[in-house]
Amino acid sequence: VVVADEGLTVAAQRIQPVILSGGSGTRLWPLSTPERPKQFLELFGNSTMLQMTAARVADADRFEPPLVVASPDHADLIEELLRDQSTATLILEPTPRNTAPAIALAALTAPAGELLLVMPSDHLIGQGDRFRAAVSAAAERAAEGWLVTFGIKPSRADTGYGYIRRGEALAPGIFQGRQFVEKPDQATAGRYLSDGNYDWNAGIFLFRADAYLNALAEHAPDVLAAAQAALDGATRKGRRVYPDLACFARSPSISIDYAVMERVARFAVVPLELEWSDVGSWAALHEASVQDGSGNTVGGNVLALGAHRSLLRSTGPKLVAIGVEDLVVIATDDAVLVVPMAQSQRVKEAVDALRSAGGTEKLGG
Amino acid sequence: VVVADEGLTVAAQRIQPVILSGGSGTRLWPLSTPERPKQFLELFGNSTMLQMTAARVADADRFEPPLVVASPDHADLIEELLRDQSTATLILEPTPRNTAPAIALAALTAPAGELLLVMPSDHLIGQGDRFRAAVSAAAERAAEGWLVTFGIKPSRADTGYGYIRRGEALAPGIFQGRQFVEKPDQATAGRYLSDGNYDWNAGIFLFRADAYLNALAEHAPDVLAAAQAALDGATRKGRRVYPDLACFARSPSISIDYAVMERVARFAVVPLELEWSDVGSWAALHEASVQDGSGNTVGGNVLALGAHRSLLRSTGPKLVAIGVEDLVVIATDDAVLVVPMAQSQRVKEAVDALRSAGGTEKLGG
Repeated sequence: VVVADEGLTVAAQRIQPVILSGGSGTRLWPLSTPERPKQFLELFGNSTMLQMTAARVADADRFEPPLVVASPDHADLIEELLRDQSTATLILEPTPRNTAPAIALAALTAPAGELLLVMPSDHLIGQGDRFRAAVSAAAERAAEGWLVTFGIKPSRADTGYGYIRRGEALAPGIFQGRQFVEKPDQATAGRYLSDGNYDWNAGIFLFRADAYLNALAEHAPDVLAAAQAALDGATRKGRRVYPDLACFARSPSISIDYAVMERVARFAVVPLELEWSDVGSWAALHEASVQDGSGNTVGGNVLALGAHRSLLRSTGPKLVAIGVEDLVVIATDDAVLVVPMAQSQRVKEAVDALRSAGGTEKLGG
Repeated sequence: VVVADEGLTVAAQRIQPVILSGGSGTRLWPLSTPERPKQFLELFGNSTMLQMTAARVADADRFEPPLVVASPDHADLIEELLRDQSTATLILEPTPRNTAPAIALAALTAPAGELLLVMPSDHLIGQGDRFRAAVSAAAERAAEGWLVTFGIKPSRADTGYGYIRRGEALAPGIFQGRQFVEKPDQATAGRYLSDGNYDWNAGIFLFRADAYLNALAEHAPDVLAAAQAALDGATRKGRRVYPDLACFARSPSISIDYAVMERVARFAVVPLELEWSDVGSWAALHEASVQDGSGNTVGGNVLALGAHRSLLRSTGPKLVAIGVEDLVVIATDDAVLVVPMAQSQRVKEAVDALRSAGGTEKLGG
């Protein structure tokens, strides 16, 4: 082991970031579309969340260039967005099968003993240094074979996330995990918050490739078999890997939580105390954004007169908002969304209604 | 005199409708634009208000084909919209000078003894039969030389209109006028409403061409002189009259109310008890429109989910409104307006701000 510049003991081995970019993202419609999901949007200044995620681990002393698992539809876009980063490898899922098979493709591509840092491509983390320090601190346990998950210390009794229950400490800042629990009701979420031993499940993991594959072999062998066969039949073009469709399609569609984490005998949890958002709704984006003196977040072709606490964005027509309060208005050339801030999670209803009414072309792009 | 089919005594002489289409209309921005002001929009079903105004007097037994006073920019559009009506004559104001000079152009074009029915092109009247009956009833006084104005019996203490005070009855349904009064404050408007002798000034008039010209000669000779000179220098193409710009520009810009009606020794008032709207704001349009079971007026490319008491229109992008209440949302390909119903008169602020910020091209079209 060596001592890193942040003063923490880390394994000398470089860590392999695995960025999961499979989300199709309808929750930020109409800005996010199947052609350009959330992780590819410039929601915060001039950076996409994919770029921010890659930049968070752009430290050649500690991290390999990222492995990005994504849809082949987005391969060109990803290479364009990451052109300033170290060269990424793209594993292009021929069909979406949720996170367990996606991570299996990455784990099978990496050397057996390599440490994989699995991250969603579309979450916001305020303090990258704290994040990297926590990863470094967890590396030793992961190198020993522990499946490590990073939880977010909850700041409110949120019913929108799964929770992870902590057990006894394994070392400073790292705990034995007790249990993955489903999204709770309000009373249960309140209990979790006051209990103090529950963290939000943010879908961030650190483990050796072989530790994950061994767990898959034991608890979800069909996932492992499908991913292995898909890679055996893969075609490769430059730094792009195209797993075989027919083989990969035989995998169940299942998350790493269900397939592995809820079934393994032991895992570790590292609670992260930092600004984090999954930007899972327009209200979440508003909260995570820099607001003006009236509490507005304004972006693009917008004129706001007497607006308060509103999220106003246009990538298309001139948006004029007068006297609105606690409102979300998002305009593109194809669609305009207007919804009160407190109801912004209802966007999905609209997307579903538009899909069933007239096909995806109405969703814009 | 003969007895018309509505059972009223009317002058046998056919009346000359004069439709004033000079309004440049920014109050219904972004749907109304300088290129297509309110009177040219299909705000109610498939008819424009210009067409509805012309249709209201499309009775060849009682009315001549209309004289339309308008901007030359709209000449093609007007002829296209009125192609199904009797052939209209267009007097094309070379520059806008408000209503007194516009009506002077019409009065100078008509035979001296002809009765002119002057109407705005962009007001809504619910019951055309009542309107025509009232015009017929007033024709005899107008033929005697009275300047007749039609007032709207007020249904609320509105501070947005001028009022006309009635005096003694001249005949059933027609009164001597006492006074034109400015837009009142709220207390005064309430007093007018309870008094019962005040009507809204709707800008509708009936008089002999020479009666108006005589009043102009006495009270606003510069208006008359400019209009006469502009017509002396006019060019004519088919049914279009183009008055001379330099001459017409010498006229003061002044309304018929200020130039004539407030100054004449006597005038008559016919109160109209009918559904009327000047559609002077999005809220007024909403009120005048057929609403769905949730109190919404929805038009064009719109998906409304759980919306209430809202006006939602799109001529461009798909507009999705979720859970909104008492809101106006108007979308075009160029601009989107979002404003609470109660503040919809603030549109003018936005139009002014956009004009000063970047020129008229930003106003859409």
